[in-house]
Amino acid sequence: MTVLAYGTNAGDKPLAPMNISRRAPGAHDVQIEIDYCGVCHSDLHQARSEWPGTLYPCVPGHEIIGHVSAVGAGVTRFAVGETVGVGCLVGSCRSCFSCDDGMEQYCEHGFIGTYNGHSTEPPGHTLGGYSQRIVVEDHFVLKIAHKENLAGVAPLLCAGITTYSPLRHWGAGPGKKVGIVGIGGLGHMGIKLSHAMGAHTVAFTTSESKREDAKALGADEVIVSKNADEMKAHGRSFDLIINTVAASHNLDVFVNLLKRDGTMVMCGVPDHPHPAFNVGGLIFKRGTIAGSLIGGIAETQEMLDFCAEKGIWAEIEMIKMQEIEAAFERMRKSDVKYRFVIDNSTIAE
Amino acid sequence: MTVLAYGTNAGDKPLAPMNISRRAPGAHDVQIEIDYCGVCHSDLHQARSEWPGTLYPCVPGHEIIGHVSAVGAGVTRFAVGETVGVGCLVGSCRSCFSCDDGMEQYCEHGFIGTYNGHSTEPPGHTLGGYSQRIVVEDHFVLKIAHKENLAGVAPLLCAGITTYSPLRHWGAGPGKKVGIVGIGGLGHMGIKLSHAMGAHTVAFTTSESKREDAKALGADEVIVSKNADEMKAHGRSFDLIINTVAASHNLDVFVNLLKRDGTMVMCGVPDHPHPAFNVGGLIFKRGTIAGSLIGGIAETQEMLDFCAEKGIWAEIEMIKMQEIEAAFERMRKSDVKYRFVIDNSTIAE
Repeated sequence: MTVLAYGTNAGDKPLAPMNISRRAPGAHDVQIEIDYCGVCHSDLHQARSEWPGTLYPCVPGHEIIGHVSAVGAGVTRFAVGETVGVGCLVGSCRSCFSCDDGMEQYCEHGFIGTYNGHSTEPPGHTLGGYSQRIVVEDHFVLKIAHKENLAGVAPLLCAGITTYSPLRHWGAGPGKKVGIVGIGGLGHMGIKLSHAMGAHTVAFTTSESKREDAKALGADEVIVSKNADEMKAHGRSFDLIINTVAASHNLDVFVNLLKRDGTMVMCGVPDHPHPAFNVGGLIFKRGTIAGSLIGGIAETQEMLDFCAEKGIWAEIEMIKMQEIEAAFERMRKSDVKYRFVIDNSTIAE
Repeated sequence: MTVLAYGTNAGDKPLAPMNISRRAPGAHDVQIEIDYCGVCHSDLHQARSEWPGTLYPCVPGHEIIGHVSAVGAGVTRFAVGETVGVGCLVGSCRSCFSCDDGMEQYCEHGFIGTYNGHSTEPPGHTLGGYSQRIVVEDHFVLKIAHKENLAGVAPLLCAGITTYSPLRHWGAGPGKKVGIVGIGGLGHMGIKLSHAMGAHTVAFTTSESKREDAKALGADEVIVSKNADEMKAHGRSFDLIINTVAASHNLDVFVNLLKRDGTMVMCGVPDHPHPAFNVGGLIFKRGTIAGSLIGGIAETQEMLDFCAEKGIWAEIEMIKMQEIEAAFERMRKSDVKYRFVIDNSTIAE
């Protein structure tokens, strides 16, 4: 079946309308008409070949909310008409120890991304949510309990789970002091989620102008990281720091803020490596620098249910599909509060 | 009381005999006649001012075995004649949360090192184990259950605990695959201890010639880290890697060997920082790079008791005090299997 999408055939070409084919749903497939798709920085990096290995044509998009239009004969958990989500993963080996543990994102054979992943169907790789429809194996489809503002749910599927997973894994909650570095798509979700988990939540920003915004998102305190005195006052006090900044920056200044046994979790991959860090900074407090990648399907469902229960949505700016290039350029300048979401009904306009 | 020691008054002067004063034991002090003192790389770095902040005169030594010659009125745990040990710590605040947790090495106010630490007595800083006698507060004195080869026990007090603590903290034991990088003073203890804890123990060395030595120490496997194929065959397989190498080196090659949720623990501070590492290497496996510093007093006692029970000693080469400069030079070239230990009875020769 042919559907309309927005994609590009080369890194130096803007996104434009194109026809793509979607398979007829197999026995375990869910066919989804896409209502909204969040715009992640990864979409831009991949489409523009700023990350290696982009396969063209490239149709980005992995923060997908839609409704079921057909299900395969073997699908029991989803019914036509139901609102569902698809995040960054549409496949994995399902048999390695990480998949067995419900952590498909760490699949030992490599997970299949919602776009730019290996596929046996034309064009030989997966095509994402900047399109009218997607067909996904039921295991990788999420239930959506939110009843309204579904566009604001879309970013939970990447920005939300990317911060939720490390917050949960490293024990954010009452009695813990948690820092969120960077107040963008990921960071603004990190603040909301950490606050909702009951942690004392501290937002770091490079800009004084974001102080009130961060408090409005739920931060108990805001630190302007350029202010050395303000930073020093928080030395050796953080149990956990979620670092969402993808630009290369000095890690030592944040390691210095960790408490004994504290952890800084890196969620972004910079174009250029962060400068060499001081190992001594970790040694004298048994500190750790960790990495974390999105979340598994079970944990993503847990996150969606948590957000529905707590009334958490992403802060978004809705755009038409035709506005994607302008949105990309604004995103480069961090000129968005805090996530663009495409109204996919506009694709055919 | 004046006793003989070996120390130096400047970074560019060799160690030589000098007289130092030791306090008369206070109510909670233990006076120890030093029998053996291990020679740690830190001794060399500090004496030579290769690390910042050396206070002169500098008398190194923090792997001390001796026997009690006097105790203060308030000392109940030690008696005259008893064999005891002193490691890297002789003081801490005893009231911060790390001290309360028995982790004096992470004291929030800074622990007092056995040498080069703050002291209210002359010369205003602590003087270490390259001396005939030391007087230490009872809390920081260790019981020694080993009945023979006491010289081989001395290095447990730094090299032993520095590897034991992270092995225990990060769960080395049956079913775990543990790597030890570097087969020197620390690394050879790491191999012995990991093996004794029941972990599948893999030694990394840059030199084919050390393969059999590492096996003799207890390694189940040995990997020559320059051999790319050998390294690749172990990709994503280690639960824990204890990295004892203090020279600047590429961390990514070891991060690549970590399993999902695996940890590499850095135990050495290089003169020059390690090259910038690839954050993506951590992100795609929820890996961590951690630091760890020696161990607390309770854990050091646990380690000593564990070693006595399992029959573990350091492999040593005994030297006379007068041979210390030659030992330093050989240590620089890693020409020691695996630790020099001073026979302190030779100081007066």
